[in-house]
Amino acid sequence: MDAWRSALVRADATNIWIRGHDIASLMARTTFTGTLFLLHRGRIPTAGEERLLNAILVSGSDSGSAEPSCAASRMAASGNRQSASAAIAAGVLAIGDEHDGAASRCMEAIEAIVGQAAAEYLPLVEAARLYVERERDAGRQVPGLGRRALANDPRIEVLVDLANREELAGDGFAAMRALETAVSRLIEPLPLNIDGAVGALLYDLGFPPAAGNLMFIVSRVAGLTAEVLEEYTRERPMRIRIPVEYDGVPPVEDGGS
Amino acid sequence: MDAWRSALVRADATNIWIRGHDIASLMARTTFTGTLFLLHRGRIPTAGEERLLNAILVSGSDSGSAEPSCAASRMAASGNRQSASAAIAAGVLAIGDEHDGAASRCMEAIEAIVGQAAAEYLPLVEAARLYVERERDAGRQVPGLGRRALANDPRIEVLVDLANREELAGDGFAAMRALETAVSRLIEPLPLNIDGAVGALLYDLGFPPAAGNLMFIVSRVAGLTAEVLEEYTRERPMRIRIPVEYDGVPPVEDGGS
Amino acid sequence: MDAWRSALVRADATNIWIRGHDIASLMARTTFTGTLFLLHRGRIPTAGEERLLNAILVSGSDSGSAEPSCAASRMAASGNRQSASAAIAAGVLAIGDEHDGAASRCMEAIEAIVGQAAAEYLPLVEAARLYVERERDAGRQVPGLGRRALANDPRIEVLVDLANREELAGDGFAAMRALETAVSRLIEPLPLNIDGAVGALLYDLGFPPAAGNLMFIVSRVAGLTAEVLEEYTRERPMRIRIPVEYDGVPPVEDGGS
Amino acid sequence: MDAWRSALVRADATNIWIRGHDIASLMARTTFTGTLFLLHRGRIPTAGEERLLNAILVSGSDSGSAEPSCAASRMAASGNRQSASAAIAAGVLAIGDEHDGAASRCMEAIEAIVGQAAAEYLPLVEAARLYVERERDAGRQVPGLGRRALANDPRIEVLVDLANREELAGDGFAAMRALETAVSRLIEPLPLNIDGAVGALLYDLGFPPAAGNLMFIVSRVAGLTAEVLEEYTRERPMRIRIPVEYDGVPPVEDGGS
Repeated sequence: MDAWRSALVRADATNIWIRGHDIASLMARTTFTGTLFLLHRGRIPTAGEERLLNAILVSGSDSGSAEPSCAASRMAASGNRQSASAAIAAGVLAIGDEHDGAASRCMEAIEAIVGQAAAEYLPLVEAARLYVERERDAGRQVPGLGRRALANDPRIEVLVDLANREELAGDGFAAMRALETAVSRLIEPLPLNIDGAVGALLYDLGFPPAAGNLMFIVSRVAGLTAEVLEEYTRERPMRIRIPVEYDGVPPVEDGGS
Repeated sequence: MDAWRSALVRADATNIWIRGHDIASLMARTTFTGTLFLLHRGRIPTAGEERLLNAILVSGSDSGSAEPSCAASRMAASGNRQSASAAIAAGVLAIGDEHDGAASRCMEAIEAIVGQAAAEYLPLVEAARLYVERERDAGRQVPGLGRRALANDPRIEVLVDLANREELAGDGFAAMRALETAVSRLIEPLPLNIDGAVGALLYDLGFPPAAGNLMFIVSRVAGLTAEVLEEYTRERPMRIRIPVEYDGVPPVEDGGS
Repeated sequence: MDAWRSALVRADATNIWIRGHDIASLMARTTFTGTLFLLHRGRIPTAGEERLLNAILVSGSDSGSAEPSCAASRMAASGNRQSASAAIAAGVLAIGDEHDGAASRCMEAIEAIVGQAAAEYLPLVEAARLYVERERDAGRQVPGLGRRALANDPRIEVLVDLANREELAGDGFAAMRALETAVSRLIEPLPLNIDGAVGALLYDLGFPPAAGNLMFIVSRVAGLTAEVLEEYTRERPMRIRIPVEYDGVPPVEDGGS
Repeated sequence: MDAWRSALVRADATNIWIRGHDIASLMARTTFTGTLFLLHRGRIPTAGEERLLNAILVSGSDSGSAEPSCAASRMAASGNRQSASAAIAAGVLAIGDEHDGAASRCMEAIEAIVGQAAAEYLPLVEAARLYVERERDAGRQVPGLGRRALANDPRIEVLVDLANREELAGDGFAAMRALETAVSRLIEPLPLNIDGAVGALLYDLGFPPAAGNLMFIVSRVAGLTAEVLEEYTRERPMRIRIPVEYDGVPPVEDGGS
């Protein structure tokens, strides 16, 4: 087999370099959040960028055991105590298009809007209007807007304030605001939600759309480790039995089909 | 079904509190590493504790695509591009007793040694000697000692220096050193390895043994997100074909068994 | 929480019924393949249907450790021996759009072709021609045709012969043949491959498109159990180290970015 | 990298052989259950062996959406509709020591009892008595006995009758009965449960202890495919919200810890 190739990590018998940086030096001088940024962006973040990425990661770390990711981890931990990896992985698997996939979809929308604005010398507001019309006519929902679990989600203000203070809100955030305006005019007024804020600011931090999902996974895994450990230590195995009502066909006579 | 219970997160229609802390305030004032510490330890870490946990998390974030966790993620990404969660989860599943399970085993050893020392008023060195004798007689290996992938692993010195400077090296680290001495006397000289250093310092940060594995999972998921994204963007689907040599029975005649 | 609902299984303190059938009677009178059919189609299969589904399931059970699914399972088994579930799950995660996702895509194509033929009173050949034109113009590939891993894949003839002998080849198979003809005329001659044959015959057995993937997962899990067990018994932990060539940036000076 | 080795499957550019058997011939002449047996045991099963393995596989295929494996799959399907593999894998991950791990533990017990009986020329009843004494004194539970979910589980009689009729009940089943007798005398009367019956008969079919878990996984994956498909088609995304009661510390004042 040919060797695989990678531009991420060089490891030999004496040392490890992450995107060119000696791992010992990273351990001494940066943080975990800084290293995550480095892995994706190829450079150490500025203090402001790191602060913003931290706020994003904290915002998704855990919002309660009721969430599909946390509940799936607990379900797996309930039946299988042999491997914490298995329980964490089960929770990761519940994350996807429906469970916090909207940040990635926002980033794709922003990419399309910013791209069209640049290519056709349009103001963002105009490119956003065209985008919303296309989506509306195709019967698709615009991501990142509309009430989610929390009303007046307090996380949004923290993110927006921080991005403004650190002067990190750029095209992504502007495109998201333009989207909000266009949706309000063309469909109905819908407020920016947490996925929209996170997607826009990850875009402004230079991440590609796929990273919307990936950053949420990193973030949520922190919560999953605590959920799994709490399940192990406070609950007995197999304690979870979901109530189910059968609504299928009645018993058939033997041999029937 | 009865409601589940949890002491981790309270979430209602207006807000989220992580172990009593308002999430907006955590986003504004702490970091992702601080929140991870809070989730497990119930309080915000001191600056020194956070620095040490950061160094531990950076140390395991990625040590190359050759590792089972990274390779399993790439393998899944090669066949299944529908869900980044699936690829990340496959990598998490490769983490376990053999792949970085030693930190948890060290923490169990430390717990046993510190416990016996306290219960029987023994010096740690003596409790460590008894522990090594028991393990040796049972034919089991002592964890956390002996050369791993890297010779003179530079990560160890960073951790030890940092723990000393921050005055965080306590019973755990002392027990690990006592273990090193006992093994050297009773079996053969084996140096402290990265699992031993990480396990000892997580113990001194107040984490339970199971957290050895869990912290490594959090740490490695950072690397996995970058590995998966690199696989998606640089490689074509299904590019990975491991060379396999068949060494089983020769073809049997039809109908035979 | 409201009870969940399900029309699949009724279970109480004394018995279990699968889609109305007493489980003891299923154990005594049907087979595993028959029960799988029952779970999805709501009735016991005829002898011919069961034979065909068996042939489909055997065809995908294992085609060598080199495949991403088998290799991902072995990779996970190499690092984590605590839970066979974890290793099997890692292999399942490698199955998707690229790794045997084509059967599901064929079934979607067949559904579209058969649907249009019925709605517009067109012969299947004509509906297939229109489908191929649409796909070609949109730059998409037609699934189920073209050489895969095996040249002259011997599995295809077995499936086709069996379906004909049991008189089970219906609209699905006819649509697939019409697709083959249309592609040959409009693009280039490409033979039916195993995904095309499996997809067409699952359609004719009455399964929905999503089942293409699901039946392959059931099938391959049989092989994964043997692959994982062989890895556990013949190989030492952590034996797998993929060769990786680093092609990223050179080491940077300390503190640089 | 050296090639991997495997004695399971030989695949070249023209054909696939499973443990020496041409795959086309397996598809035409055996069944999926027969191929699963072949993969593990290296030969095609007799008609009686196949019937017994079928009954075992049917017995575990699905016992209701309330089970951790089914519920974990639905939980993942609720948040992540991008990949059926992800949902199936989440369900597999809930299977382990606590959720149907007992069959494997029974097989280990049987192996120990049969082994000691052979080595020391003891009757099985005597070896079982010694085994139960050892387990009782170590405070461990004897697996395979005692009421599980179903009272008078009707699946047990089917398995026992079938094994007797096919003359397949051997040392494994005898050891399990000896275990039942010994537990009844030394501890309390506890009936054989489904895990005990399945474990004993898998042992008599020549499977190793690890296969107890693996066969259950194959079996349950059939049910998981139907559960996931029902979730996709009958339920809306994110419909599952487990009720959770927070019982941790009250909100802390800002900046406090």
